[in-house]
Amino acid sequence: MGFETLLMTPGPTNTPERIFKAMARPIINHRGPAFRELYRSILENLKYAFQTRNDVFPLTASGTGGVECAVGNIVAPGDKVLTIHFGIFGERLREAVVRFGGKPVDVSAEWGENPSIEEVERALDENPDVKAVATVYNETSTGVTWRAIKELGELCQRHDKIFIVDAISILAGDELPVDEWKVDLCIAGSQKCLACPPGVSMVSVSERAYQVLRENKHRPFYFDLESYRSFAYERMETPFTPVLTLFYALDEALKFLREEGLENRIRRHRLCAEAFYEAFDRAGLRTVSKPENRSNTVIVLWNPPGIDGEEMRRMARENHGVVIGGGAGKLKGKCFRIGSMGIICQPFVSRTLKAVFDSLSKLGYGFPEEPSKIISEVEGKLEEGLGRLPPLSL
Amino acid sequence: MGFETLLMTPGPTNTPERIFKAMARPIINHRGPAFRELYRSILENLKYAFQTRNDVFPLTASGTGGVECAVGNIVAPGDKVLTIHFGIFGERLREAVVRFGGKPVDVSAEWGENPSIEEVERALDENPDVKAVATVYNETSTGVTWRAIKELGELCQRHDKIFIVDAISILAGDELPVDEWKVDLCIAGSQKCLACPPGVSMVSVSERAYQVLRENKHRPFYFDLESYRSFAYERMETPFTPVLTLFYALDEALKFLREEGLENRIRRHRLCAEAFYEAFDRAGLRTVSKPENRSNTVIVLWNPPGIDGEEMRRMARENHGVVIGGGAGKLKGKCFRIGSMGIICQPFVSRTLKAVFDSLSKLGYGFPEEPSKIISEVEGKLEEGLGRLPPLSL
Repeated sequence: MGFETLLMTPGPTNTPERIFKAMARPIINHRGPAFRELYRSILENLKYAFQTRNDVFPLTASGTGGVECAVGNIVAPGDKVLTIHFGIFGERLREAVVRFGGKPVDVSAEWGENPSIEEVERALDENPDVKAVATVYNETSTGVTWRAIKELGELCQRHDKIFIVDAISILAGDELPVDEWKVDLCIAGSQKCLACPPGVSMVSVSERAYQVLRENKHRPFYFDLESYRSFAYERMETPFTPVLTLFYALDEALKFLREEGLENRIRRHRLCAEAFYEAFDRAGLRTVSKPENRSNTVIVLWNPPGIDGEEMRRMARENHGVVIGGGAGKLKGKCFRIGSMGIICQPFVSRTLKAVFDSLSKLGYGFPEEPSKIISEVEGKLEEGLGRLPPLSL
Repeated sequence: MGFETLLMTPGPTNTPERIFKAMARPIINHRGPAFRELYRSILENLKYAFQTRNDVFPLTASGTGGVECAVGNIVAPGDKVLTIHFGIFGERLREAVVRFGGKPVDVSAEWGENPSIEEVERALDENPDVKAVATVYNETSTGVTWRAIKELGELCQRHDKIFIVDAISILAGDELPVDEWKVDLCIAGSQKCLACPPGVSMVSVSERAYQVLRENKHRPFYFDLESYRSFAYERMETPFTPVLTLFYALDEALKFLREEGLENRIRRHRLCAEAFYEAFDRAGLRTVSKPENRSNTVIVLWNPPGIDGEEMRRMARENHGVVIGGGAGKLKGKCFRIGSMGIICQPFVSRTLKAVFDSLSKLGYGFPEEPSKIISEVEGKLEEGLGRLPPLSL
């Protein structure tokens, strides 16, 4: 596949050659016809990726900029917001609410767990005056996917609350039909399951969200969704100079997604994640997530007792050219994180497993069974599963 | 030079091959050692470009994001801010103040003009409670450079006000010694005189600015300069995922700037702008700016009476491959704008003049003297002037 170094961090992830080629296209005037054609193509294909008829705008900002956009458009000073958090990125979402002068009402869970729908329902009953509910779908710090977005969406609709979902590290890697699940503002990032370099985040906006944000005089200027809307509708342009190079990348990435098909992309992510989980389970490693909330895209494992995870990561990088993420926030030094995203495929899974298992072996970890046997069995099964999907043209 | 199409808009501008090459570098972990080395190099070279010992941070955002950052870190709800405006970008600066809940105190001038220092002084005397003074240095909508930043800086220091300067379209194209001129927050953009593609803006931060922003609990989360500072000092990382591809571009652009030398870069911009102004003056065209506030980087000309400027721009693009900007805001349809930035050089100036003059001729414009004579004389003089500067290696 020609990846000298394999980037297995939970974003950025490996970028295929076709996207690098797209980024080499010349710089053009963002107020001219060629840009409008590019923008139109991106806007149309984003609707496909988000499974929505709502607007979806690409922003010149990375994921947290998308969060700032979604939160800042809705939350005015004094507004109460139900903030659901069970890891670093949920806490960031909460912090964004605070910065805009919002009053967070917290629903939280231990890291590795997720809250229950009942807790959210109770909090909504106790706080009928909240304006919005904000949650992370896939918590990149713990590898937990809270598969309750559909139920949360119904709950929000029943209670007439704006529903904000940070799906940065999961959109296109797991189910997320934005309209069907009634998400008002959904945030994604370029450098995750879309296999782009970092630098663009995308936000979808429902009609209900527009109605609310139009009333908010203090929404951010740079991230003003109303001006994104009017510039798109009236001129097919962005209100401010866009990060053109990454727009080229995103356009190519979305075409790539359509070629593969969203369902196939999700299935590929699932099969690769299952292969990782099966291999790690058999090797006796423990995930931070529980079996029922394991992420399709981010795999977070505790360092085995007595093993220095940082040393393992260094060995994987230096001896195998495989870059793995470290623990984040309060999990720093306690676990390691694998991003299984974008163009994840059997050779990447195998090479990553080899790198981790070999490094753990050298550090004295006792495997319950022969690591090479685990890898070859998992690999065979994965190959078979992926064989039923269309081949990727990178 | 190999530029099939010449991008002469007031940003983005032409990107040299060496910067495209830099952007083809592989995507790496932004929490790893290779990124830290890249970031260290950028931070060091930004100090050179800004002529400052203060911090300068590259943000994953385009210019207006930099404005939002500078304004949002300083301005809390209820704060009075002296907003100086004489064109679209000054109005944007004012709008950013309003969005953050600030109360603007206006000092303005007609488009094409600039206010006087005395007006600012009077406004400061009448409003001793303003917290900050914000101005545009180079107004991209009118081609006006207000060469009073030094005096404004002294005034702000005397009155103990935070001084915010939008220098997006001018930094490295004209004088701007940030420390000497006492600018607290200076904003620049990648896609102007630094010859990068768009997508990164840069903000410098004085110690005085840090003191003020630390007290502001409502500063934006994504653009929080205090977290930029702590992540840089403690880990040599950015708080959020950066637009890595553009960071590669910026790093290369800054190395390119150091090779050429800031003084030479400014001189080159000045010589090219002078060539444009001389040619347009001789051709009987009128600038929106006055002779004393003409920009080194953005040249804005009135459409000659009876000439359709949009048609002229279309002909320049289609017949000569030269892309020129249109009028912006209330000048739309009334003027055209040339960005003379980045790797601007004699062949670019000549080709642009040929494109404009040829199109104007075809549209029936009566030149007071032979256009080809104007071009060849201006060209000769420019060549001579640039001959004294080091050659550019693109």
